[in-house]
Amino acid sequence: MPRSSQTYPLSRPPVIVGYGSAGGRKEKEGPLGRFFDHTCEDDTFQQSSWEMAETAMQQLALGSALKRAKLEAQQLDFLLAGDLLNQCISSAFAARWAGVPYLGLYGACSTMGESVALASLLLAGGWGNHAAAMTSSHFCSAERQYRTPLEYGCQRPPTAQWTATAAGAVVLSSQGEKGPVVSAVTIGKVMDKGVKDPANMGAAMAPAAYDTLRAHFRDTGRSPADYDLILTGDLGQLGWEIVSDFFSRDGCPLSNYNDCGLLLFEREAQDVHCGGSGCGCSAAVLTTMVLPGLQSGRWKRVLFCPTGALLSPVSTMQGESIPGICHAIVLEGGAS
Amino acid sequence: MPRSSQTYPLSRPPVIVGYGSAGGRKEKEGPLGRFFDHTCEDDTFQQSSWEMAETAMQQLALGSALKRAKLEAQQLDFLLAGDLLNQCISSAFAARWAGVPYLGLYGACSTMGESVALASLLLAGGWGNHAAAMTSSHFCSAERQYRTPLEYGCQRPPTAQWTATAAGAVVLSSQGEKGPVVSAVTIGKVMDKGVKDPANMGAAMAPAAYDTLRAHFRDTGRSPADYDLILTGDLGQLGWEIVSDFFSRDGCPLSNYNDCGLLLFEREAQDVHCGGSGCGCSAAVLTTMVLPGLQSGRWKRVLFCPTGALLSPVSTMQGESIPGICHAIVLEGGAS
Repeated sequence: MPRSSQTYPLSRPPVIVGYGSAGGRKEKEGPLGRFFDHTCEDDTFQQSSWEMAETAMQQLALGSALKRAKLEAQQLDFLLAGDLLNQCISSAFAARWAGVPYLGLYGACSTMGESVALASLLLAGGWGNHAAAMTSSHFCSAERQYRTPLEYGCQRPPTAQWTATAAGAVVLSSQGEKGPVVSAVTIGKVMDKGVKDPANMGAAMAPAAYDTLRAHFRDTGRSPADYDLILTGDLGQLGWEIVSDFFSRDGCPLSNYNDCGLLLFEREAQDVHCGGSGCGCSAAVLTTMVLPGLQSGRWKRVLFCPTGALLSPVSTMQGESIPGICHAIVLEGGAS
Repeated sequence: MPRSSQTYPLSRPPVIVGYGSAGGRKEKEGPLGRFFDHTCEDDTFQQSSWEMAETAMQQLALGSALKRAKLEAQQLDFLLAGDLLNQCISSAFAARWAGVPYLGLYGACSTMGESVALASLLLAGGWGNHAAAMTSSHFCSAERQYRTPLEYGCQRPPTAQWTATAAGAVVLSSQGEKGPVVSAVTIGKVMDKGVKDPANMGAAMAPAAYDTLRAHFRDTGRSPADYDLILTGDLGQLGWEIVSDFFSRDGCPLSNYNDCGLLLFEREAQDVHCGGSGCGCSAAVLTTMVLPGLQSGRWKRVLFCPTGALLSPVSTMQGESIPGICHAIVLEGGAS
């Protein structure tokens, strides 16, 4: 591996021994709806605020992940989590509930990738036995914070995406026997090609996805065909087209390529414009589709590449462009 | 080490091969002022917004750290950074400038601890050769975001602390020969004893500092006397008193114990009430005092324990109490 490699093959690959998910009503009505561990008809999860509802989703997702892993929370050596809310409060309050060593992350919608990557590097580096990686987003808390109060009924441009009301949690073990493994991770760089429209995140994040995927193929000597499924997310329709186009122009078209933002919802029927978004989107696709699919033998090797847009409403108002990031995770095996 | 240990002794301890700092005018006028690598009379750092000034401070601090390390940014395998601004934009924009693999963190004012801990675990785990850990805060961007516009001239209660305008960056190497080493890290749990007053962060964070310090002493079998300096931060005067009191009641009084919030400013003369705060406070104390002091032989072993309050203005308005966290880093040697 060259000196400048961004990719870390894990010779002692951590095993994903448990995963869990929670989603709102729209997510339940989507194509992956029946695979959620927990859903809620009114998106409140019996809480008095959208923010606490988001925390509740993380708790439910982590609870299910621990149950599948047959572990107690207290057996976790690390909990790595983050979310979209200012100061990442959904994760902080979920971590308060879990009561285990906590490392807060901020990678916007790439957080499921960042948390799994870091958890894997920690465990494969010899630190601890069990780690959980977790994230969430909630349509109502995100809209209020990033855009306009829902009651305004603002129109959305065609490039907009729909923030998922969802949480996903994964429990990794350094010594598990059953389950998909994380066999390599690629840590992404911040990419910014000057897109300034916060209603067009797909275009803003696509260069980061392209850069990380290229780095991954370069570092590993693999090609897209070495994967049964390549998943970015959440680039949505436009971002997916941009990344596809970049690779086609390189003479290396992506095969088996999809995007988490295109999988969580029926794009036309559910009126989500360019697709799903939010930290919870790729977390939900990972925990309701990718990991079950690896366990069932539907896929043998998946490249899971969550993307994040590292903007804030303040940076947008100040005229800044939108930095993007993407981390890639190789998930393999797990069929029993 | 027991199964439930939160502490990781690093048998291949990463070396801190470079560090850098930037601070504002008030920080320059404080007791550590002359040790900053960069200061700015009007706190703008020649930028058009306080937010971009904060990014500029991170760039300056990282630049100085790389210079001391005799490394180029491109030699960094990881940049781990975070800050207090919504969506951690200071760090994201600094990472865009650095152009290296980026892992965004959110640990509030504990971020200097979290970033050094994670960087150390990554390098000591065999991943990469060089990593940078970085954070910042800016009085003006933080006041605007967390409290009231400066122009209001709001009065501050006696328990309030003063957000530092400062950034600190550290470059760690898995194979350095000269410099202080990170010989162990203790990852903290979220602690919340019900304090709800965001103008009394010291009381809110003190239980986390106490919990992490106790875990550290339990895991390592060491006592406070094994350290030439124990530094929490930024608890300020009240938090420092609470932690001191807790340990005294345990019959294990802390010796050589100070707090970063008490070191950055002259508390009375500079009218900072309970002391300094903000991610940049402990980052500045680390890079202007602790690391130079280890290099000069003033101390041989320091326990550096940044603390963070994981609240947001929204969680406060919703009546939530304030979760706290603290990570501990053992810094040793480095005298030439």
